[in-house]
Amino acid sequence: MNRRMCAFIIGWVLRLEAVLMVPAMICAVYYREAAGLSLLWSALICMAAGLVIAWKRPEDTAFYAREGLVTVALSWVVMSVFGSLPFVFSGAIPNPVNALFETVSGFTTTGASILSDVESLPRCILFWRSFTHWIGGMGVLVFLLTLLPLAGGSPMNLMRAESPGPSVGRLLPRVQSTAKILYKIYIGMTLTQFVLLLIARMPAFDAMLLTFGTAGTGGFGVLNDSLGSYTAVQQGIVTVFMILFGVNFSFYFLILAKNAKQAFKIEEIRLYLAIIVICIAAIATNLILTHTDTPLSAMHHAAFQVGSIMTTTGYSTRDFSAWPEFSRTILLLLMMLGACAGSTGGGFKVARLLILFKTVRKEVTLLLHPHSVKRISMDGKPMDGDVIRGTQVFLTVYVLIFLGSFLLISLDGFSTMTNFSAVAATIGNIGPGLDLVGPAANYSFFSVPAKLVLILDMLAGRLELFPLLVLFFRGTWKKF
Amino acid sequence: MNRRMCAFIIGWVLRLEAVLMVPAMICAVYYREAAGLSLLWSALICMAAGLVIAWKRPEDTAFYAREGLVTVALSWVVMSVFGSLPFVFSGAIPNPVNALFETVSGFTTTGASILSDVESLPRCILFWRSFTHWIGGMGVLVFLLTLLPLAGGSPMNLMRAESPGPSVGRLLPRVQSTAKILYKIYIGMTLTQFVLLLIARMPAFDAMLLTFGTAGTGGFGVLNDSLGSYTAVQQGIVTVFMILFGVNFSFYFLILAKNAKQAFKIEEIRLYLAIIVICIAAIATNLILTHTDTPLSAMHHAAFQVGSIMTTTGYSTRDFSAWPEFSRTILLLLMMLGACAGSTGGGFKVARLLILFKTVRKEVTLLLHPHSVKRISMDGKPMDGDVIRGTQVFLTVYVLIFLGSFLLISLDGFSTMTNFSAVAATIGNIGPGLDLVGPAANYSFFSVPAKLVLILDMLAGRLELFPLLVLFFRGTWKKF
Repeated sequence: MNRRMCAFIIGWVLRLEAVLMVPAMICAVYYREAAGLSLLWSALICMAAGLVIAWKRPEDTAFYAREGLVTVALSWVVMSVFGSLPFVFSGAIPNPVNALFETVSGFTTTGASILSDVESLPRCILFWRSFTHWIGGMGVLVFLLTLLPLAGGSPMNLMRAESPGPSVGRLLPRVQSTAKILYKIYIGMTLTQFVLLLIARMPAFDAMLLTFGTAGTGGFGVLNDSLGSYTAVQQGIVTVFMILFGVNFSFYFLILAKNAKQAFKIEEIRLYLAIIVICIAAIATNLILTHTDTPLSAMHHAAFQVGSIMTTTGYSTRDFSAWPEFSRTILLLLMMLGACAGSTGGGFKVARLLILFKTVRKEVTLLLHPHSVKRISMDGKPMDGDVIRGTQVFLTVYVLIFLGSFLLISLDGFSTMTNFSAVAATIGNIGPGLDLVGPAANYSFFSVPAKLVLILDMLAGRLELFPLLVLFFRGTWKKF
Repeated sequence: MNRRMCAFIIGWVLRLEAVLMVPAMICAVYYREAAGLSLLWSALICMAAGLVIAWKRPEDTAFYAREGLVTVALSWVVMSVFGSLPFVFSGAIPNPVNALFETVSGFTTTGASILSDVESLPRCILFWRSFTHWIGGMGVLVFLLTLLPLAGGSPMNLMRAESPGPSVGRLLPRVQSTAKILYKIYIGMTLTQFVLLLIARMPAFDAMLLTFGTAGTGGFGVLNDSLGSYTAVQQGIVTVFMILFGVNFSFYFLILAKNAKQAFKIEEIRLYLAIIVICIAAIATNLILTHTDTPLSAMHHAAFQVGSIMTTTGYSTRDFSAWPEFSRTILLLLMMLGACAGSTGGGFKVARLLILFKTVRKEVTLLLHPHSVKRISMDGKPMDGDVIRGTQVFLTVYVLIFLGSFLLISLDGFSTMTNFSAVAATIGNIGPGLDLVGPAANYSFFSVPAKLVLILDMLAGRLELFPLLVLFFRGTWKKF
C-alpha cells in the first residue's frame, strides 16, 4: 500500500475543490451576499490542507488496483467533509452531520436533502449545493486525470474505481484522451440544456442550477416544490435531458465519430429506452384508469417521473408518493435499477441487468443440456468471464448492503416503507423515496446513526460498492 | 424430451397421492364425518387418472436432467390440482382457485391460507390440509424413489430437482439408500414430537396436525389464532422442533453414524444456530426496551417467532405484525433467508448465504491483488465452481422473480408492505407476512390473477426456482 501516493492524490483533489468553489464565490459577489465569505474561508482551508498533504510528489509513484480503490474512496470522503464547510460556516446548515449528509448527497448526485425550506438559503450557497452535483456526476478523479499525468503506474486503476458500470470501455487508446472526450460531451450537453431552458424563459439562476442537477442526475432544486411550479415546456426540456444524461456516454462518442449505426446497436441503450417507454405507458395508463389525471397530463407527468427516477435524478413535478400502488411500485423498481453504465446516473445499472438476464438464460440451457457449451456475448462480442462474475458479486454485495442498511435504520422505528425506500433512494443515488421520505418531504427526521448509514449508502452507491467496501477489509491496509 | 417417461412418473405420483388420502379417510371414519366421502371420491379420481396415465412402463426409460426438472415441476402442479379436490367436493373451499391456493400452500409447506375460520372445517379435511405439509416437506418424488426403481438413467436427476439446497450431498453411495435414511430420520423426529406434545397434554388431534405442520415447516394450524391459545410448554416444544426441522438433515445422519464431531463442524449449521440466537436476543431486547413485553415472555415469544419464521414454518403465538419496527424488519429479513439446505424449510437457505459471503470475500481479495489465487472452500473441502456459479444465478433469479411478482400483484392496489411481504412469505414458503397478510389475517382478499402469481411463487420457492423456470423456456420442449 503506497500511502504517500494516495495522500498526494487526495491533496490534489482538495486543491481542485478549492478552485471549484470559485464559481459559487462569483455568484456571491454578483448577488452581493455575505455568505460568500464562508465559501472563501472554506476554499482557503481546502487549499491549505491540499498544499500540506501534497507538498511534493513522492519518489515511489507505484500505483496499483489497491491504491486506486482506496484513493477514490478516501478522496470522496475527504471531499465531502471539506465540501460541507460552506454550509456550516454560512449557518445555512449549522449541524455538521446534516451538512455532511447534504454534501455527500450532492457529490454522489443523490439529491436527498435534509432541508425543508431551500428557498430561504443564500443564492451562492444554493449554487454550491447544485454545483456539487455537476462535479460529482463525472467524478473528480477522472477530471484530475485530464489535467495532470498524476499516477505513475496505471491511471486506468483510478478510472475503473470511479466510473460507473460493470466494465470501463476505453474509447481511445489513452485513458486521458478518453476522459477528455467524456468531459467535452458533458460540458457540451450541459450548455445546450442551459441555453434551451433560457429560451423557454426560465430565469438564468434557476436554469443554471437545474441544469447542474440534471447533468449530474442529482436532483437538488431551487424551489421547495422541486419542479412543480415551472411551465410544462420547461419541465419537458428537463425530462428529455434527464433521459439523455442517463444514456451510456459511449453512445455519444460513437455518434460524434459518425458511427450512428454502431451507436444504436448498443444493447444496453435499446433496453434502457424500451424500459422507459414501457414504464411511461404503464404509469400513464394506471393514472388515467384510476382517474387520477387527464390523458395528456398523465403522459407528461409519467414521462417526467420515469425519466427522473430511472436516471436517479430525483426531481418531481407531482407528489408521486400519492400515486396508485402499481405506479408507485414501478417507480420503486426503477429506483433500484437505475440508468445506463457509463452515464452520470446511479443505481444497479441497465447493463448489469442485461448481463444477469444472459447469465440466467445460459444457466437454464446448462441445466437442460449439461454438456452444452454456450458463451455470453454483449453487443456481438463475447463477454469477459471476469465481468460476468463481477456482476454477480455486485448483485450479492448490493443486496447485502441494502438489507443490512434497511435493518440498521429500522432501529429508528419509522414505517417499513419509509426505511426501505430511504435505502433504495440513497444507495441508488436517487434522492426522494416514498412515505416519510417522499418527494414532498426530507430526510431531517432520521437519527444521527441512521443518517450516517444513509451517508455510507450514498457513497457506496456512487462508487459502486467496492471502493468503499475494501476500506473495511483488513487486507487492504497490510504492508504486503 | 422423453415425454412418455415423464407421464409415467406423474401417473405414479397420482397413484401415490390416492394412497396418501387414506389416513384422512380413516380420520373421517373415526369422527363419523360425511366429508370423508369427498376424500374417497378424490382418491378414486386420483387413482383412475394415475392408472390411465401410467398404464405401462415406456420402452425407452432414458431420463436426463431435462426430464428430471420437467417431471418434478409438473408432478407438483398435477399433485396440487388433484389434492385440491377434497376441499372443493366437501364444500370447505368451494372456489377452485382458493382450493388450489390452499393445496399448493400445503404441499409447498408455505402455510398461507385463504380461510378466515379454520375451526369450522370438518376434522378430516383439516387432517388432509395439514397432512399435505408433511408430504410436501420431504418431497413426493424422493419418496417414490425409495419404493420403486423407477427411473432408468439416473434417479439423481429427480432428487436433485426436488431437494432443497445448492448441492445435494449423497450421504450413501446409492440414491435410494440416501432417500430411505432421510425418511427414517423424518418419521422418527415426527413421532418424537407427537409423543412429547401428548405428554404435554395437548389433545391428540391437535398434536398430530401441529406435528405435521412443524415437521414439514408448513404452518397450517387447527385453531384460528394459530398457536396463541396453547400452553407455554406446548409452544416451547413446537419452538424446539421447528428449529430442529430447519437443520440440514446431514447433521442427523452424521449423528446417527456416531460422528458428532463432524456434524458440529458443518459451517451452515453453525451459522444457522448463530443467526437464531442473535435474532432472538435482538428481538427480545427490542420488545423489552419498547415495553411491549416482560423479559420472560419476550424471550419466549421471540424464540417462537424467530424459529417459526426462519424455518419458514409460519406459526405464531402473537400478532408480530404489531411488534416494533426493528423486530418486524428482522423477521422480514429472516423470511427471505430461510432455513438450512437439506432441511424441510424453505427460503433462500443459509448455505447459499454462506457461499455468497465467501464469494464476496474472494472477489475483494482479487480486487486488491489481481493476480492472487484463492479457492472457496466449505466445511474444509474446496467447493465446486458449478455450485458457486449456480448459487449466484439462483440469487439473480430469486431477485427477478421476487420483484416481478411484487410488481404484478401491486395491480390489486393494496399497500406496498402487504405486497412485498406477501411475495416474501410465499416465495419463501413461510405463510403469514405483514400488514394485510399478517398472522392475524389471510390471503383471501387478493384477486384471482394475484392469487395465481402467488401460487407460482410458492411452487417456485419450494422447487427452488429452476424446475418451474424451465417450463417457460422454449428449449425445454424441443425434440432435440
